[in-house]
Amino acid sequence: MIDHSHDPALPCWVPGATDHPEFPIQNLPLGVFSDGEGDARIGTRIGDHVLDLRGLAEMGLVPPELGSLSDTTLNSLLARPAADRLALRHALSALLSDGGQAARIVHLLHRIDSVTMQLPAAIGDYTDFYAGIHHAENIGKLFRPDAPLLPNYKHIPIGYHGRASSVTVGDVPVRWPHGQRAGPEGPSFGPSQRLDYELELGIWVGPGNAHGEPIAIDAAPEHIAGFCLLNDWSARDLQAWEYQPLGPFLAKSFHTTISPWIITAEAMAPFRIAQTPRPEGDPRPLPYLWSDADQASGALALNLEVLIETAAMRENGLAPHRLSVGPASNLYWTPAQMLAHHASNGCPLNPGDLLGTGTISTPTPDGRGSLMEISEGGKSPLTLPNGETRTFLQPGDRIIMRAMAQATGAASIGFGECSAEVVA
Amino acid sequence: MIDHSHDPALPCWVPGATDHPEFPIQNLPLGVFSDGEGDARIGTRIGDHVLDLRGLAEMGLVPPELGSLSDTTLNSLLARPAADRLALRHALSALLSDGGQAARIVHLLHRIDSVTMQLPAAIGDYTDFYAGIHHAENIGKLFRPDAPLLPNYKHIPIGYHGRASSVTVGDVPVRWPHGQRAGPEGPSFGPSQRLDYELELGIWVGPGNAHGEPIAIDAAPEHIAGFCLLNDWSARDLQAWEYQPLGPFLAKSFHTTISPWIITAEAMAPFRIAQTPRPEGDPRPLPYLWSDADQASGALALNLEVLIETAAMRENGLAPHRLSVGPASNLYWTPAQMLAHHASNGCPLNPGDLLGTGTISTPTPDGRGSLMEISEGGKSPLTLPNGETRTFLQPGDRIIMRAMAQATGAASIGFGECSAEVVA
Repeated sequence: MIDHSHDPALPCWVPGATDHPEFPIQNLPLGVFSDGEGDARIGTRIGDHVLDLRGLAEMGLVPPELGSLSDTTLNSLLARPAADRLALRHALSALLSDGGQAARIVHLLHRIDSVTMQLPAAIGDYTDFYAGIHHAENIGKLFRPDAPLLPNYKHIPIGYHGRASSVTVGDVPVRWPHGQRAGPEGPSFGPSQRLDYELELGIWVGPGNAHGEPIAIDAAPEHIAGFCLLNDWSARDLQAWEYQPLGPFLAKSFHTTISPWIITAEAMAPFRIAQTPRPEGDPRPLPYLWSDADQASGALALNLEVLIETAAMRENGLAPHRLSVGPASNLYWTPAQMLAHHASNGCPLNPGDLLGTGTISTPTPDGRGSLMEISEGGKSPLTLPNGETRTFLQPGDRIIMRAMAQATGAASIGFGECSAEVVA
Repeated sequence: MIDHSHDPALPCWVPGATDHPEFPIQNLPLGVFSDGEGDARIGTRIGDHVLDLRGLAEMGLVPPELGSLSDTTLNSLLARPAADRLALRHALSALLSDGGQAARIVHLLHRIDSVTMQLPAAIGDYTDFYAGIHHAENIGKLFRPDAPLLPNYKHIPIGYHGRASSVTVGDVPVRWPHGQRAGPEGPSFGPSQRLDYELELGIWVGPGNAHGEPIAIDAAPEHIAGFCLLNDWSARDLQAWEYQPLGPFLAKSFHTTISPWIITAEAMAPFRIAQTPRPEGDPRPLPYLWSDADQASGALALNLEVLIETAAMRENGLAPHRLSVGPASNLYWTPAQMLAHHASNGCPLNPGDLLGTGTISTPTPDGRGSLMEISEGGKSPLTLPNGETRTFLQPGDRIIMRAMAQATGAASIGFGECSAEVVA
């Protein structure tokens, strides 16, 4: 069977969907939405509409074995093999490209501004990696100018466990965290004075593994269901004081924001590229982390962008200001390497678990993925076009992240915004 | 109303329950069990029996508002206020002390050896603290002989996020973890060569807090539903190589074992004691971590014990050998301090979340809570009574943890065993 779902010429009868910059018919992401009555349902986004997949399933218009479409989270769908997600994609693609179907299902479309997006899955565990090598170098330089990367960095996808309960979808306001930090007269407790964002990708886990059973790197793609944007909000003053010897804790666990749509691995198929070759002299990873197939096509052709909108900018009707732009190819480890490493000790990964990649920065100053890097640890304030300055965030600041997948011969698709405002 | 539930003279009609060393009528812990048919039900343990609380609820013998007793996990019961758990305790105490009730409910008793214990709750998030100060000193000395404790230790209950999906109840075999570790010829991957256990207490979270709303230390007890034993299995060679700069990850996430019963905060009421006074010169914690009431009665009168049973000991019918014994009063921070700190940044704690205290060691060599400490980093092998030696664990070793609560004038209660075997 020929897969037409990526054909850039594929038509779509939904008004405004053809040539939609982020959600054309070639995207078809998965999410959970509710309308005014709060009834959570699984949907896909097409143009500026959400299509109710529960309704579609009730009409018998999607493969019957995908009965989990009537759930209020995507966990059971994520548990299914990739072939099932692909079958769903093909069914949706056929329905939305065939104008003859419009009359039957148009009632299942909701305008995106009439619904509220919810967490796509109940997140069992959330893990955050540190795979953005230029970020690791930028941060490391602030502490160890001569040796910014620790000896393990190029051998292990460094990661730590995050706080699943603190993950929300975009637009939930981020309440300003209080915490303990060091000071010249001893530690004190109060509102963070160095609140920051971090630009990351999120990786949604699919079927996963049984406790004690590792996942081989060549099997890892079967367990990667999709992707999203992730803002790993960070309180730098809390982090500096608490993180030795067991790692970040309350500096991160107050809030993590993700974009609401799971951009499926199937939608991303045209946007898989070769991993950036390791620089001459870098060690070759151990075999459990190395696969020629993964090196050939395991990375993501994604362009990432971060913008800030301050309260003053909003009041004066100014557009958000771009803080950084750059490609996801600055990740030193592929998603498959992160997942294979995670399961290498037998740790059980479950459907709906979330992995963060770590902050993605470019080697150049225009693509730094956090204010800590942009302001060089708070020493070099950033001046915004309206004259405001920032070293770290201020109350009322909104951080907006965007991702666009682009490849020759393919229709571009976007991730939708990961956007939230910090409030005092 | 006078609370008779702790009366040491309270009779119990269940055979073998009176004077039971761990589960007399004064204990009444909460757990989830299944019988041969795998039907998970909430139960309490009385002597060597489990009483089916779903059955009791169906008969209308417990307060009707506790409808959550028909669930297959304790999460909704943990979400209820402490007063509801106390009402359940009083109802159970009355039923099990009144011989006139025996005929009505004896059919709801199952012999403990005929059931399988399950996780008492779906654990949303698992956090591990580091509050055992003598453990922190013992481990710190191996790395920094002159300054074993880092500057933050006496100001912050140091903690990190653990892997919720890796937590199982006792007797699930621990599959030997593989992983990456450093070596003279560079890193290698294989079975851990320094597998260890860690003796901890677990703290079960009750109602919890909304996202962004801290929990004041004086309110913390309302959110502590109960306690268990916890074995934080650790692969020391993986840990040493991976833990900088973000903390332990795969060295811990392969398995964590807990004892199956939640020993309720209400059952522990007679065993609350004053926190060990901080040594002269130690800093007084900041106000959000300090409460006179908590200092007066926030610690636990618990005696903790770890035993090992090797495969050879088992084959030769030898009794397990005690590795350590000592009191839980060696925790530098109380459970309320850990919980208040955890929520101080607004991090949402949910019913069924689990907190580990960190390894509890005594200041003396007889109470070291891990092999890393007992063998002084592997340098001083331990000789067992049958002539075997250990620096770290060997396949077939079973680690058994026990806890006994004892106080003058109160019937002693136990936690039941936290016991599991490591398998190659």
